[in-house]
Amino acid sequence: MNSRNIFDDPTFFENYRALRETEVNYNDQLEQPAMRRLLPDLGGKTVLDLGCGFGHNCLEFVRRGASRVIGLDLSRRMLDQAEAACGDPAITYLCRDMTDLTGLPQADLIYSSLAFHYVQDFGRFAQDLFAALNPGGWLLFSQEHPLVTATPGGLQHYNRDEHGKEISFTFSDYGRPGRRECFWFVDGVEKFHRRFSDIVTPLCRAGFRLDEICEPLPGERADQIIPGILRREEIKPTFLIVKAQKPGTPSSV
Amino acid sequence: MNSRNIFDDPTFFENYRALRETEVNYNDQLEQPAMRRLLPDLGGKTVLDLGCGFGHNCLEFVRRGASRVIGLDLSRRMLDQAEAACGDPAITYLCRDMTDLTGLPQADLIYSSLAFHYVQDFGRFAQDLFAALNPGGWLLFSQEHPLVTATPGGLQHYNRDEHGKEISFTFSDYGRPGRRECFWFVDGVEKFHRRFSDIVTPLCRAGFRLDEICEPLPGERADQIIPGILRREEIKPTFLIVKAQKPGTPSSV
Repeated sequence: MNSRNIFDDPTFFENYRALRETEVNYNDQLEQPAMRRLLPDLGGKTVLDLGCGFGHNCLEFVRRGASRVIGLDLSRRMLDQAEAACGDPAITYLCRDMTDLTGLPQADLIYSSLAFHYVQDFGRFAQDLFAALNPGGWLLFSQEHPLVTATPGGLQHYNRDEHGKEISFTFSDYGRPGRRECFWFVDGVEKFHRRFSDIVTPLCRAGFRLDEICEPLPGERADQIIPGILRREEIKPTFLIVKAQKPGTPSSV
Repeated sequence: MNSRNIFDDPTFFENYRALRETEVNYNDQLEQPAMRRLLPDLGGKTVLDLGCGFGHNCLEFVRRGASRVIGLDLSRRMLDQAEAACGDPAITYLCRDMTDLTGLPQADLIYSSLAFHYVQDFGRFAQDLFAALNPGGWLLFSQEHPLVTATPGGLQHYNRDEHGKEISFTFSDYGRPGRRECFWFVDGVEKFHRRFSDIVTPLCRAGFRLDEICEPLPGERADQIIPGILRREEIKPTFLIVKAQKPGTPSSV
């Protein structure tokens, strides 16, 4: 099964929607707060949201003043829900592969939440992202941390002490970038492992200026909502967030 | 024991010298080839080598055309050997803490091999490095990989399958940056763990433009010299290398 289509698989879709509809998930407690903190000023700006899913972030960008938001996703099911629940005259939802940026308006922000680990050729993609931005424009994306994508077949695991407390994490194959297949609600979900260097260096090569790398840690409130998340994240991070800028002076809005 | 002084400890010094005098070490097979590949043109340039040890790299920079090289190290024993074996009129060896850059000439390259994990305050240090470089100047450093520095007390370990083959790696506390104490020939060697983000973001904040991040993998020749190194490095990297530039146009030499 092609990973890009799993989001239209009925089993996957229902499980995924249920996960995202509860507050008890790592995205809401860990990734989203960090991503929001890193958002640049969006007043009058054009935003591309790559892998926009249910469209919550597209609507947030409009609330923050964006004049135009284009959400791309390969899942027709997700976009149907996005249009129903997160529609706005300033938002256009497009059903297409998020690596196909042809014919889109130049963006001031390219945003992507937890989708780039599905991209196979990141060097090429980094160049396309750079070309799709206005001078001074921002790239802000999150993905699964390289320590999460590394191990084939989901064989990584936490280790516990004799009292059941999580104390360490076991992984392998960090130094072997490439395709990984894992189980996530359904079999055969396909991702691509990249080392830290395989993420950062292509962005630099494409011309981006790195602004910040973030490996978010949960606060105490998150630990009350998801007991144990703080200890687990202190052992091993789940997410990697990158903020980078295309050099140049933005034209006046 | 303060980590900065271990290199003058007689037990440590003799073990360390013996390690570096054989070709069968990770530095020569893995870190040094990658560092050499990333060196910028040095013709007529001024180079600072922070934690220069026995001075081999200082001499290499002169061979590559550097007009002035200043090697800093806290170990008087190492510098005595550097002056004896790697002396040159273009090289000045200074016995001082490598984070003290006061009074030195502005550099075109700041180079450091496997010493930055001893620095406690990397944010402050990144600013000092930036200030010590000429416009257009380069920072090139290697350090122990965050996956190596993470686990307190050297409790990380490779795991083997039933045939004795190394198959995975166990670590902890990646998400808890700070002081670590470990055994390396002697007890109480002090290092500082930083996550990727704790290394990259301070450099960006200081004004550096990241050029390349490298997590070097060994070639087949290295695997013949150190059997098993290739498999171990595919499981978990040992080194992290960062190349960054201070923006601006170099003045003519």
